[in-house]
Amino acid sequence: MKPNRKSAYPSKDLLGIESLTREQIIGVLDNAGGFKDVLQRDIKVVPTLRGKTVVNLFFENSTRTRTSFEVAARRLSAEVINFDVATSSVKKGEALLDTVETIEALGADYIVMRHEASGSPHFLAKTVKASVINAGDGQHEHPTQALLDAFTMREKLGRVEGLRVSIIGDVLHSRVARSNIFLLTKLGAKVTLVGPPTLVPEEFRELGVDIRHTLADGLRDADVIYTLRIQIERQRRNLFPSTEEYRTLFGLNRDRLALAKPDAIVMHPGPVNVGVEVTRDVLNMPQSMITTQVTNGVAVRMAVFYVLQGAKEVGSEKVA
Amino acid sequence: MKPNRKSAYPSKDLLGIESLTREQIIGVLDNAGGFKDVLQRDIKVVPTLRGKTVVNLFFENSTRTRTSFEVAARRLSAEVINFDVATSSVKKGEALLDTVETIEALGADYIVMRHEASGSPHFLAKTVKASVINAGDGQHEHPTQALLDAFTMREKLGRVEGLRVSIIGDVLHSRVARSNIFLLTKLGAKVTLVGPPTLVPEEFRELGVDIRHTLADGLRDADVIYTLRIQIERQRRNLFPSTEEYRTLFGLNRDRLALAKPDAIVMHPGPVNVGVEVTRDVLNMPQSMITTQVTNGVAVRMAVFYVLQGAKEVGSEKVA
Amino acid sequence: MKPNRKSAYPSKDLLGIESLTREQIIGVLDNAGGFKDVLQRDIKVVPTLRGKTVVNLFFENSTRTRTSFEVAARRLSAEVINFDVATSSVKKGEALLDTVETIEALGADYIVMRHEASGSPHFLAKTVKASVINAGDGQHEHPTQALLDAFTMREKLGRVEGLRVSIIGDVLHSRVARSNIFLLTKLGAKVTLVGPPTLVPEEFRELGVDIRHTLADGLRDADVIYTLRIQIERQRRNLFPSTEEYRTLFGLNRDRLALAKPDAIVMHPGPVNVGVEVTRDVLNMPQSMITTQVTNGVAVRMAVFYVLQGAKEVGSEKVA
Repeated sequence: MKPNRKSAYPSKDLLGIESLTREQIIGVLDNAGGFKDVLQRDIKVVPTLRGKTVVNLFFENSTRTRTSFEVAARRLSAEVINFDVATSSVKKGEALLDTVETIEALGADYIVMRHEASGSPHFLAKTVKASVINAGDGQHEHPTQALLDAFTMREKLGRVEGLRVSIIGDVLHSRVARSNIFLLTKLGAKVTLVGPPTLVPEEFRELGVDIRHTLADGLRDADVIYTLRIQIERQRRNLFPSTEEYRTLFGLNRDRLALAKPDAIVMHPGPVNVGVEVTRDVLNMPQSMITTQVTNGVAVRMAVFYVLQGAKEVGSEKVA
Repeated sequence: MKPNRKSAYPSKDLLGIESLTREQIIGVLDNAGGFKDVLQRDIKVVPTLRGKTVVNLFFENSTRTRTSFEVAARRLSAEVINFDVATSSVKKGEALLDTVETIEALGADYIVMRHEASGSPHFLAKTVKASVINAGDGQHEHPTQALLDAFTMREKLGRVEGLRVSIIGDVLHSRVARSNIFLLTKLGAKVTLVGPPTLVPEEFRELGVDIRHTLADGLRDADVIYTLRIQIERQRRNLFPSTEEYRTLFGLNRDRLALAKPDAIVMHPGPVNVGVEVTRDVLNMPQSMITTQVTNGVAVRMAVFYVLQGAKEVGSEKVA
Repeated sequence: MKPNRKSAYPSKDLLGIESLTREQIIGVLDNAGGFKDVLQRDIKVVPTLRGKTVVNLFFENSTRTRTSFEVAARRLSAEVINFDVATSSVKKGEALLDTVETIEALGADYIVMRHEASGSPHFLAKTVKASVINAGDGQHEHPTQALLDAFTMREKLGRVEGLRVSIIGDVLHSRVARSNIFLLTKLGAKVTLVGPPTLVPEEFRELGVDIRHTLADGLRDADVIYTLRIQIERQRRNLFPSTEEYRTLFGLNRDRLALAKPDAIVMHPGPVNVGVEVTRDVLNMPQSMITTQVTNGVAVRMAVFYVLQGAKEVGSEKVA
């Protein structure tokens, strides 16, 4: 069977959402549904990646995302190595390319990478035979986050197409927002960005989204209220108002949630600054999807490994 | 078969010794005997927890205890994730509850937790479906340490009931001492606390123990000499005399050991401040149980996972 | 079958090359060839060490070497525990012997150890029943590095005997150089040390090697150009000239490489200070063996575990 160009996953890597087709995205989400079923079982392990090695290479700390990839890879029976950047010679100025070539030479089949330089995984993916999965590159993309978010919307609301999704906060600096905008517009959702003009500039309209500058406007008609994490350290550089002012203008509390549709769901990529982006009582409401997103992250990352493995086998003409 | 209330393990969690019955404690120790046999085999792995995930969540560093749980869990074929508190957002003030809910959402079946706040595992155990194992909470309890100590006494001396156990040192601040006092008195040992009144206050008599203030008095008639670790940093707060004075008054050396019964055993939860609590030559004597305690710690922790797994299956009415 | 004294591996430990015979070294290299084949397979795991536990105990940071041992052990189906020295009580002055006895008591079958004190693994190997593998002790030996280097020479050039190997740089402080000198001379290679007299003193001639003080002299007739890593921090102690002067006098670039035989190979134990010991364009030439050395390191370390396991079984008279 010849794979369909539009739906078959196109490469050994997952670098971003921007370059994927609607059909390829849906392919990953469909597979994630199967893996979510696996996670409900008593024995949550399948042999898909037996004998394969996944290396986590995180230049920015993120225990949650790293652990999510680790759990996903182990559920697929892969070996997982956490390459310790802090104590490696990378810190001493070694070139990233040399590090990645070493990791591949040690036997990595998959390199899951987070790096502060936008585009770095794209550069490396060209050089190595191992699959590169972008776990966040600078302010560019965080594709598995957008995939798990879409999976969660589809699971809870039955579809992505036609949903009104409001993304609230520091859109300008957010790779999560960028990947979500690419994915949601490809799948036919209506995206609204909500925040002050300094964090949600007009240029974003070119991506096919709407922009609103008050929370009340942003919540109206929303099916999904997607709150972004505030990076407190950016405040010092005057890129956003004080935490207190942010909370006052854009923090989601129970009263404001009443402005949205009654069945609207609340999402956040985590970890939440509780009481800033979202209040504790909203987090405790059934509309809050935050822990569901965490669980779905494992299922979606299993699906990503699975789909890349398939693409590699097609690429090496084991399947044709 | 309906489980016997007094002997069946009562919950999904191990939070402390205080709430367990004599029969429940003996149940864990009996199972540990079987796992100690497994550890003597050439292939030391059994499939008990295949497909389960154990997460180590240590807010206080303890490479030994964490490694002991890791080895125990892997011998049972579980996956083990060491959740790195130092680099996680927990450090940035995230609520403990949010962290634990995230860990459960990632798929943890068991959360092994050490935290400086007494009672924190009890609080969390109520909220999550995962089993919580207390690996030390503040100055409250360290139940697996007491279980491995009792297992060692039973293994070497044939019983716990009727043994005279002298616990020497900073009892006041020691969760190891508290868990041992609960366990040993429940199993019918006669416990004597030995130390200066600042570290062994009279109030402890309410727990059913004897108190003596000199080492000579404490060693007389002892079957088990249990030395506690001195926390050097407490000295600065004037809670105990200088290290030198402690050694002079309460340090165990070969001459003093001669005051105890000839077949008395010497124990310590580790790591020993060699030459302070115990001298090197005593450590090298056959009476010293320190490395035996380490080995037994793995067997006992395997038994704890096993018993909790059984309790969960009873709880979910797979067995009734 | 009674094992041949000269060729059978003599002990449970790998502490250095100096005490091995030519035949024992060749035995490890031959086995490594088989494991390299395993690494080319789709499923790169064999059951050799199933149920065994390998503990990495690194007192000096080395993410690469530690990861190489970890990958090797896991490919043999062993459990691997990375004992975290930084957060253990070892840092607080605990004796190394106590730490190692604890690790053995936890169930370690293999202890892979790097320590700044020359001879420390030899001291420990006598005390514990676990196998000790020296992953670098001070300025003494780094035996697995020399084995993987010889394996790479044999793989690329068909033999070690009769090869002219030039080792360039800070030989005086290099455990890599020492282990390579022992191994290469035992296997009949002609070793030339190249560097300024402060880094390559005359005393080395006693080991059966030649010494030259200019790079041009060192490269002439060489089959293997082995560049050592410069420890920049030694410069401050005036043990070698400035980095700039080192580069000028002993740095390998494309022009200088032309002085060697056309099919000479370039090696380095990694990580390279690119542009100091070797230029980027030389690293990119097909003669550069740096990533091949990394891959071969995994195969050679698998062979070391395998050979030690065999020696232990002979020792315990399972094979006689």
